[in-house]
Amino acid sequence: MKNYLLTPGPTPVPPASLEAMARPIIHHRTPQFQAILKEVEEGLKYVFQTKNDVLIFASSGTGAMEGAVASLLSPGDKAIVVRGGKFGERWGELCEAYGIEFAAIDVEWGKAVDPLEIKKILEGQATSDKRQGIKAVYVTLCETSTGVTTDIEAIARITKAQQAVLVVDAISALGAVPLKTDEWGIDVVVSGSQKGLMIPPGLAFVSLSPKAQDLAQKSKLPKYYFDFKAYKKSIEKNDTPYTPAVNLIIGLNEALRMIIKEGLENIISRHQKHARAVRTAMKALGLELFAPDVYSDAVTSVRVPEGVDGTKLVKTMRDTHGVAIAGGQAQLKGKIFRIATMGHITADDLRVGIDTLETVLLESGYKFEKGAGLKALEKILEQ
Amino acid sequence: MKNYLLTPGPTPVPPASLEAMARPIIHHRTPQFQAILKEVEEGLKYVFQTKNDVLIFASSGTGAMEGAVASLLSPGDKAIVVRGGKFGERWGELCEAYGIEFAAIDVEWGKAVDPLEIKKILEGQATSDKRQGIKAVYVTLCETSTGVTTDIEAIARITKAQQAVLVVDAISALGAVPLKTDEWGIDVVVSGSQKGLMIPPGLAFVSLSPKAQDLAQKSKLPKYYFDFKAYKKSIEKNDTPYTPAVNLIIGLNEALRMIIKEGLENIISRHQKHARAVRTAMKALGLELFAPDVYSDAVTSVRVPEGVDGTKLVKTMRDTHGVAIAGGQAQLKGKIFRIATMGHITADDLRVGIDTLETVLLESGYKFEKGAGLKALEKILEQ
Repeated sequence: MKNYLLTPGPTPVPPASLEAMARPIIHHRTPQFQAILKEVEEGLKYVFQTKNDVLIFASSGTGAMEGAVASLLSPGDKAIVVRGGKFGERWGELCEAYGIEFAAIDVEWGKAVDPLEIKKILEGQATSDKRQGIKAVYVTLCETSTGVTTDIEAIARITKAQQAVLVVDAISALGAVPLKTDEWGIDVVVSGSQKGLMIPPGLAFVSLSPKAQDLAQKSKLPKYYFDFKAYKKSIEKNDTPYTPAVNLIIGLNEALRMIIKEGLENIISRHQKHARAVRTAMKALGLELFAPDVYSDAVTSVRVPEGVDGTKLVKTMRDTHGVAIAGGQAQLKGKIFRIATMGHITADDLRVGIDTLETVLLESGYKFEKGAGLKALEKILEQ
Repeated sequence: MKNYLLTPGPTPVPPASLEAMARPIIHHRTPQFQAILKEVEEGLKYVFQTKNDVLIFASSGTGAMEGAVASLLSPGDKAIVVRGGKFGERWGELCEAYGIEFAAIDVEWGKAVDPLEIKKILEGQATSDKRQGIKAVYVTLCETSTGVTTDIEAIARITKAQQAVLVVDAISALGAVPLKTDEWGIDVVVSGSQKGLMIPPGLAFVSLSPKAQDLAQKSKLPKYYFDFKAYKKSIEKNDTPYTPAVNLIIGLNEALRMIIKEGLENIISRHQKHARAVRTAMKALGLELFAPDVYSDAVTSVRVPEGVDGTKLVKTMRDTHGVAIAGGQAQLKGKIFRIATMGHITADDLRVGIDTLETVLLESGYKFEKGAGLKALEKILEQ
């Protein structure tokens, strides 16, 4: 059975990257690897839209998120954490793990935070005795668990004037939705390899503004493997502090070449079109979007219609038809399904995905005009 | 130019693993991946020679080493650290990063620790007020920077009777030299993917004895990504707490199948023979081994003869002849070179390596009978 991957990470890996990763391995302290690392670094700066160094970690995205707490803060520092899904909650868990007190802004799952709420807390604390306390604001650009996009540009306008750094989890958003790190003034962008960057999981990335670099220099929380200072110092010498994930970086180099060739703006337009096509198809099937106003162009979340078993739907699509979409996580288990449009997921993958969704929905007793979703999808794709 | 990799990590990756890693990626929360993870887990238990779960991390070996400090200890706990090279020193740096006070046993580089020194400290402290203090003993099985093997079996006999857990860095030793985790009574074995396991860098592993699992339950040092408790809980359900490095694990599965097919005892015999052949070749060339009595069968360290530029030797072999060996690290820079015999490094790779070494040594003005090294190597290889 041929497998189609429409999941929000891992996303399909382009053949050029697969082939590059299958080449005989090379040592990392060699001119060959250093040339690749240098090209990767330039490519990452382009995708991150930053002039600052991008640190590369052998880890899942969560590891780099941990670094953005342990490598930036010191005991007694405070933070703001926006929690509107599983990955926003992760920021809170990370702060808790390191004893960092934080003001939590809990957002209903499926909604986005109002940036003014962050402003209120930052300005409120600025007039109190604890005005030196809040050192970081942790937010999620695309909350993979709910398919919600947060207005990072607006939040960055607020944090720019403050001492606090803005830390953005862009793991399932980088290279899929607009993210202008330097132009918007984002201090720290965290990302991973298995989403818009189209590579298997195992690499994580962090960009640091000068303000964040200062904070990293002063940070006193315990850390070692995710110590940003060590990675910053190494990348300046075109090196890594520990053995890097050599073949993943070689695969990434090919993926970045593809991204540069297609152009970031074209890629983002493609994601917008594909996601709009999926949203339109869902509506044509009479399905309800889970985040109709604050949707993400990386992943679309859809409410499972009444009478349909959401877990079974995802399982049947995958195990019977070879089409992997994602179900809901945590409190949304069985209540939503998610169709990714990020990275190397093509228009044809989406055609197969929506066609299969229709087949399985019909089998499960849900009523709609067969073909309506595919037709609506096609109409947008053809534009 | 064809490249030959005789470095102590990364080591050459077998074609079956390269091919498996180049297959279209699959999602990690699927029956397909779970079947692979289960097989990998069984294979790891075989190589680790343990009945306990082996935790799998997406990281370099250093990350898992950090976990063996942060996930086992609590503030106020003390440790013993054996430092006889760059990687022994890393245990000390990790303890320092987490504020763990430790008794350092500093061993001259090129020598191995006397296990009785560990005994003295453990028994000495057992009669003092601080007898509850020492919770862990951190040692290195094969110190990659010096090519020294430590007598872990003897150390385990000492620690078994103590409250302290024995934590062994077996990153460049697992699957290359004898290591009987359960039989010897080692509590924690840390390893990585790019050495004896023959896979590209990016995976790390930890086995935990029940005594170590207890410690992990009670540990109060801050951690998140390397929290052993989370990985233990997940692996029991054949899952991972964060997105795993899917294609590396798929490649590992193929490598483990090869290991099981060849058999661990045969593999260790092969390593012994290959390393003995290299040592004999070095002596035939009139070269001096850096660790003549406590050598490792994973990597052989050799003193650079007087009048030869050690850094240039390694560079010329690699850049002119395509044969990568390793130079010395830190205080040994330029003073030694290292030839690995671990993992998928074959007898033919060694023939090419020694032949090239002879060529470059002759060019550098070092005097010996051309072919003497290769002849000595061959004599052992043919046995």
